[in-house]
Order: sequence, then structure tokens, then C-alpha cells
Amino acid sequence: MINILMSGCNGKMGQVISRMAAESEDLMIAAGYDKYTKINNTYPVFDDLEKCDVKVDVIIDFSNPDALDGLLSYSVKNKTPLIVATTGLSPNQVNKLREVSEAIPVFFSANMSLGVNLLMDLVKKAAKVLEYNFDIEIIEKHHNQKIDAPSGTALAIADEINSALSEKQEYVYDRHSRRKKRSKKEIGIHAVRGGTIVGEHSVVFAGTDEIIEINHIATSKEIFATGALSAARFLYNKKPGFYNMNDLISETN
Amino acid sequence: MINILMSGCNGKMGQVISRMAAESEDLMIAAGYDKYTKINNTYPVFDDLEKCDVKVDVIIDFSNPDALDGLLSYSVKNKTPLIVATTGLSPNQVNKLREVSEAIPVFFSANMSLGVNLLMDLVKKAAKVLEYNFDIEIIEKHHNQKIDAPSGTALAIADEINSALSEKQEYVYDRHSRRKKRSKKEIGIHAVRGGTIVGEHSVVFAGTDEIIEINHIATSKEIFATGALSAARFLYNKKPGFYNMNDLISETN
Amino acid sequence: MINILMSGCNGKMGQVISRMAAESEDLMIAAGYDKYTKINNTYPVFDDLEKCDVKVDVIIDFSNPDALDGLLSYSVKNKTPLIVATTGLSPNQVNKLREVSEAIPVFFSANMSLGVNLLMDLVKKAAKVLEYNFDIEIIEKHHNQKIDAPSGTALAIADEINSALSEKQEYVYDRHSRRKKRSKKEIGIHAVRGGTIVGEHSVVFAGTDEIIEINHIATSKEIFATGALSAARFLYNKKPGFYNMNDLISETN
Amino acid sequence: MINILMSGCNGKMGQVISRMAAESEDLMIAAGYDKYTKINNTYPVFDDLEKCDVKVDVIIDFSNPDALDGLLSYSVKNKTPLIVATTGLSPNQVNKLREVSEAIPVFFSANMSLGVNLLMDLVKKAAKVLEYNFDIEIIEKHHNQKIDAPSGTALAIADEINSALSEKQEYVYDRHSRRKKRSKKEIGIHAVRGGTIVGEHSVVFAGTDEIIEINHIATSKEIFATGALSAARFLYNKKPGFYNMNDLISETN
Repeated sequence: MINILMSGCNGKMGQVISRMAAESEDLMIAAGYDKYTKINNTYPVFDDLEKCDVKVDVIIDFSNPDALDGLLSYSVKNKTPLIVATTGLSPNQVNKLREVSEAIPVFFSANMSLGVNLLMDLVKKAAKVLEYNFDIEIIEKHHNQKIDAPSGTALAIADEINSALSEKQEYVYDRHSRRKKRSKKEIGIHAVRGGTIVGEHSVVFAGTDEIIEINHIATSKEIFATGALSAARFLYNKKPGFYNMNDLISETN
Repeated sequence: MINILMSGCNGKMGQVISRMAAESEDLMIAAGYDKYTKINNTYPVFDDLEKCDVKVDVIIDFSNPDALDGLLSYSVKNKTPLIVATTGLSPNQVNKLREVSEAIPVFFSANMSLGVNLLMDLVKKAAKVLEYNFDIEIIEKHHNQKIDAPSGTALAIADEINSALSEKQEYVYDRHSRRKKRSKKEIGIHAVRGGTIVGEHSVVFAGTDEIIEINHIATSKEIFATGALSAARFLYNKKPGFYNMNDLISETN
Repeated sequence: MINILMSGCNGKMGQVISRMAAESEDLMIAAGYDKYTKINNTYPVFDDLEKCDVKVDVIIDFSNPDALDGLLSYSVKNKTPLIVATTGLSPNQVNKLREVSEAIPVFFSANMSLGVNLLMDLVKKAAKVLEYNFDIEIIEKHHNQKIDAPSGTALAIADEINSALSEKQEYVYDRHSRRKKRSKKEIGIHAVRGGTIVGEHSVVFAGTDEIIEINHIATSKEIFATGALSAARFLYNKKPGFYNMNDLISETN
Repeated sequence: MINILMSGCNGKMGQVISRMAAESEDLMIAAGYDKYTKINNTYPVFDDLEKCDVKVDVIIDFSNPDALDGLLSYSVKNKTPLIVATTGLSPNQVNKLREVSEAIPVFFSANMSLGVNLLMDLVKKAAKVLEYNFDIEIIEKHHNQKIDAPSGTALAIADEINSALSEKQEYVYDRHSRRKKRSKKEIGIHAVRGGTIVGEHSVVFAGTDEIIEINHIATSKEIFATGALSAARFLYNKKPGFYNMNDLISETN
């Protein structure tokens, strides 16, 4: 059983992680840390880390950048591995994380979604294997309030594919304005918008009489909780170092 | 049992229809008509309609425009309903079909695919019901040799939707070139190209926390055979008239 | 503009409907009715219908069965059309709705989802058109906590298909236990279970080299709000009568 | 440019491979070998390997088991790498292949589909990464004439998943006969049957508010041609050894 200190335990993500850990067999929130303490949890919650006397194996932080300094002190003092899933850190704070990672294991990833990171890894592998006989197209779907198109994740997927292939591909967003066959050197990227779709990414590899599709569908922002818990399993008993989702995914191979 | 005279029985589509009729319980090819008679069929094949002494209920024609005059004479003389699935008729020939339809039932459709016509009918209905809370997007997929984009069928679907809605929608082919929210008055149309995909059309209705999708996937050109056989059932015992796939689909409601 | 009295406005569904009405161009919540009045809304909220002095065109009720008697009195006294989306009514209460519907328009549906009801309607139509050359299979997906399989909706879809076809189909849940070809008289029903999937229903019509799919995907329980708002548009200016989702969908054809 | 000797060049698969090689930039059929020589090809065809005086880099064999002995002699004598895609070899013949592979590179795979082998590899990786928070389900679709269910490939995929996970999963084919929640230790396997579907395999990983799907769709048996051509690229300039699709896919990582 891995005992976790949940920083930001009474926020939305903290509560989701608490529920998911309770349902797991190998993870347990042993203590919480939050300025707001009015919620009843199955574990003790401290509004000051100094008061926390519970022994934990890993810290997950899903709070806000202001809490980072205190967490780092606690983490270094107790030699406790630290997962930072809080967004909006300053470059300075990221540097500090990197320094501290020489003494303790630190996990920090630009995108905490396990699924999206896995999608990228699988797509990269598929692109390499299918390079010669397959055409690659990306379809992403998001809600009708999204302003940018294509999504940042779709572009990141396309860049990953490009980095995996031996020849650079061109991104094509509109075929309506031309009359010609698809080139072998293009990746079509399609941005579907509608309703309240949270986020779907589909990568299509179309070959001769066969298609491979790799899809990721998110139905809420809570998917980052899964990523944080996977990071907890990964970081437990690791040597000091600065880790991210790619390291986690590579390790399982 | 409906007895069919298959005109163009030894062509590719004629053979597909023969096989499908043989597998059905209510349809039978009773005779064939083809200039080329070297193939063995389970039914007699005539290279001249004059010689045909088999009594039939319906004629399916999947041959070439040159054969039409002979077929029309035979059809009128014997009062036999006629399905013309041959493509490339001249406007004059279509007019002749229309004339003849005052005496016998004639079936002629620009698109003989039962599935595609049904798709359009379902999409139209869905568009009306979902008009107020749903965004509509069309995704079509075709092989990498296709020159036009989007497909004619995708545009026909969009036009059908537009005819069903109370306010006219604008077609959007590229969202990458702008930074703004989706308007409520647009239909996104996306042309995916890759490999040897024969033809897929997907219409997405995205609302608040729910999506309805209506998809048609063709894996060969043989889908027109299904349309021809359905037309045979439809035309059997009909009154004289000029019918098409829309009539067939409307009748079943 | 249709003015709505939202009964149960401060419940979860009441709040969703309020938000969706505010985003629409033709609907407005003019007043709310709820025992709990601590939430600030853009409209006046009454904890007693007697106090409500706002003139409304339609009432939507998403509260609880106890509130029904008061609502019915108010509705009859003011001749206001009534949509009852509250679940758990007793047979007696449903009978009372039916009586009252002789004087005012009443809308009541076992399943308030517009999408699911539309799915059934489209599937029924497709089944009729495709009866002779297509095999029908149903795939539903739900979360891993669901106890029954297949879902009630999947069975209702299968029953609708059966009612539409000229020959009765048998439901098949497991093909692993036998070694034989699919019969033409069966509907395969498949219950996929995993994660937190809210609910997906896919109906596959597989023919000769073509497939038609009609899918409904729900990502939250809030889809009933869309149904309630569509019912408001439908019921506005209707004659007295007892209406349901089927009537709404039929009307649009 | 890799020069290929195509054994069985005038068979269906030989012709498909010829066409695909002609469209590629790095592969060329330099000579053909077939007992039947009535087809005109862009390359010389020999009905006896002794007569073949063309220098080739790799041999692809898509003929029949009777031709193997002659091919092996030729291959060993000329030190030419050999890809055997012919099915129906006897255990003795497979042993002979293994022996010969000590002198020349030999490629032989139970399933020559590049796509299906890649699917298995991706699924295995995904299963490892997602082990703790995701449920795995397999849906396969095939035509209505298929007798066995689930497909051999679906079972092979399930076995691969099982080999990748730390705890053994039970296969579940029917949920209709029981009333209980999904166990964390099961893989649901669903066999959809209908129309002329050639073969689809979909692996669903369902987690908390996110889904990853990996799909393979075949629309003809010709997908083995892609596998053979990929094997040609792989085997060119390899050291002697007995290789299969797994080796090819592993190498690209």
C-alpha cells in the first residue's frame, strides 16, 4: 500500500483523486493538506504542513503555485517523492523543482493526462511501422466554445508523427480549396466543433484495404486524476530525478 | 416470388445481383439479357430480347445506354416494370423514360445506393428534430486518389440538411485560419483522404452532453446491387409512374 | 419568446435547464418555483405557487412527485401547458395527468431524452427500409458499476426493431457457445462495460459491402434538459391533450 | 531500390504486390516466377527458377507449399533472403525453413498482416500502461457466414493482453445471463456478425472519464500484401536468421 499526502485535497481534483484512491487496491490517501478544511474526508486534513505527523510515501500536489515553497521544504526534509500536477508554475518554480530533483524524485509533466501521453506514444510507434504504405490523418472534436483550431494536442500529435518519420510531412487543414490528389507527404488535420464535447483525438492510418485508428476520448477534465495516481505508483521507491509522463510510459515497455 | 429479367447479366453488377437474388427468399433471376453469353448462369441468357420467351415480373437494367431503346420496346410491349440502373443516359433518354412511365412503372435514380439515400432521409429527419440545441458536422473519408473535396455526397447531405432547417447554414471547410467560436449557423464539412477507403460519410449532431451520429460506410461499388433489388421489390405490382429512391424510402414509413 | 415557469429550478436539472434556456433565442425562464430558495437566479423564485404573479406560457417540472398536486391546480387554474419530467410518479398520479390533459396540454414521457427517442425513431425507419438485405446488431456501452445487461434502452431499441419488421427476430447475447452461421432472424445484442461510460447505444445495419450505423452517446444525465426544452417548444400553443416524445418527433416529419 | 523476385506473381496476391511495388519508391519487382505465364507483367516471368537470370535482393513467395523446395534451393544457392507468405506449410517444411535460416535470412509469420501484428503490439503496450485504472473490452465484427466466434485474432489479442498484465484476466462472452457488476479481472469479448464485413477488431480501454480505443479494420484479404512488402524492406541486408512480424515491429522502436 502506497500512502499519499494529498495537497489540495479539498479542491475538485483532490476530491476526485481521493475517491479513485479509495477504490484502488494499492493506493491510500493517508493525509490531506488544504487551507480550506470544512469538508469531511476519511483521512486527517491539515491546514499547515508543519502539523502533519502522518508518515507518507508520496505527495501529490493539485493545489496552486503559492503552495509550492512549503511543499518543497516538507518534501526535502522528509525525503518524500513529490508529484506536482498544479498548473501555472512560473519558470522559476520549475527550475526550483529541477534543483530539488537532485535530492528527491520529482514528477512534473506539461500534460498530466496518462491517456493523451499514451496516445502520443502509440501513434509515434505506429507511424514508424506504417511509414511506407499508410496515409495519416488526425481528427479532433471539441465543444462549440473553443476558439483555437486545431487543438494544441492535435498539433502536438502531428509534431510527434513528424519527428518519428524519415521525411517531413506538411499539415493540410482544408482540401476544399484545391482539386488534386492527396500527396504522400501530408497529414490532414480536421477540427470538428459542436455541442459540449470535452475532447476527442483520433489518428487514422489508412493503407491498402486496411485502417488502423488510435483514439482518445475525454469526457471530463478529471482525467488528470488518473495521471496523478499513475505517477504515484511510478514515483514510489524511485531514485532522485526529474521525471515526466514520457518516462512513466517508457518504463512499462 | 418475383421473377426478374436481368439486363447486363454478365457484367460485374449483373453477376453481383444474380448472386444476391439467389440468396434471397423472394427474388429470382428468371432470365438474362447480354450481348456476351460465354458465362454459365443458373438461368437462360439471351443475346436478343426478341428471343426471350420467359415470363418476368420486373426488368433490372445494369448494362449501357445503347441497350435502352430495345429494353423500352420490350418493356412497353410486355407491360413489364423497368428499373434503369445504367449510368450515363443522355437527357433525351431520361425524357423517354419519363414518357414511357405513363404506361408502365419506371424506376430511375441518380444515386442507386439504398444506404446513401436512406442516410439522407434519416439525417433530414434528425436535423428537423434537433434543430435548436445541436450543432451539425459532416465528416467524409475517401481514398487518396480522389481529386474533389468534399465529396458530392457530402455536399448533397449538407444541402438536404439546409433544406430541412428553418434557417440557412453556412458551410465551413477550414477552422485553422480563424480564431473564433463556432457559429450556430454553420455546418463543418471535413474531407479525410487516405489509403483505399471506398467511401464513408458520417453526420454528427452534437448537443449538450449528447451526440447522435448517422454513418454510412461503403466497402465496394457493389452497394448499387442492393439498391436495384430493393427497387425490384418496390416496383412489383406498382401502378405506372416515374419512381426513384426517395419514393421507395418514403413508402416504408 | 416562450416564458417558462421552472418547477424545481434550484435542483441540478433545474439549473441546467436555466442555463440552456438563457443561451437559447426563443426560450426564457420567467419564474422559478422551489422550496429551497438560497440560490441567486436571473429570475424570481417562489417557494409557494400561490405567490407567483408572473405570467408564463409553459411549466416545466423537474422536482419531485410531492409537488405534483400543487402544480396541477396552478396549471389548470391558469390554463398553462405542463411538462412533467419528474420521475417516480405513482400510477395514480399518471392517471391524474391523463385526466387533466382533457383541459390543458400535458407532456409526459417515460424517457425524457430527445436523443434516445430520436434514435429509436430513426432505427425503426432504417429497419423497415433495410429489412431484406441487412443484418442488425446492437452494441451498448456503460460504466463498470451497472448491474443489468443489456441496458433497458438496448432492449427497447430491439423491441422497436421487432415491431417494425415483418418477421420476428430472436435476440442473441452470446455467440461464443455455438459454432454456426448467423441466422437471418437474429439481432445480436452486446453489452460492453468499462470505466465511467455514461451510456452509448449503437445500432449497426450490415449489408452487402455497406454498413449504416446510428449511434447515441450520452456523457451526462443532463441530456434530459434538452428534452424538456424541446417539449416546451412543442407544447406551446398546443390544444389540450396527453403528449409524449413520440408525438414531438412525429410532428417534425 | 530493392529488387524482388515475386514467386506466384500471377496469382491474386502476386498481382496485388506487383501493383503496390510499382507505386512505391523503393521497391521493384525485378522478376516473377509462376507456372502460369499467360499474364503480361512489366517484368520477366519464368516458369522455372533455373532459367531466372535476373539478380534480385529478396524473394517474396505467395504461391503454394509445393513450390517451396525449389525456392529454398534457389535461395540458398544465390544467398537471397526469402519471405514465405504462402500458407498451409507442413511442420516439416517450417522446420526446413528454420534450418535454412542459419545460412540466409528467412521471414515467416503465422499472420502476415502488418496491421494486425501492429495492433497487438500497441494493445500490449497500452495494457501495461493502463493496467490499474482501466477496463479492457474487445469488440470484433465479421461477416454473417463466419462460423466461429469470437475470431481467432480476438482471442490472440486477449491472450496478448493477459501476457502483459500482472494479474490474469477472465474472458467474458455474455453478460446477459447474470446480474452483477463488472469485475476488475475480466475482459469482455463481443462478436458482432453481419453482412459482408471482412474483419474489424476494436480494443477499448475505459477509465475514469476517458477512453482509449485501438482499432484495426480490414476491407479485403489483400492486406497481406502490405505485410509482405514491409517484410522485404526489413529483410534486405539482414544477417541470416529466422524472423517474423514481431521482429519487424520491434525493430522500429
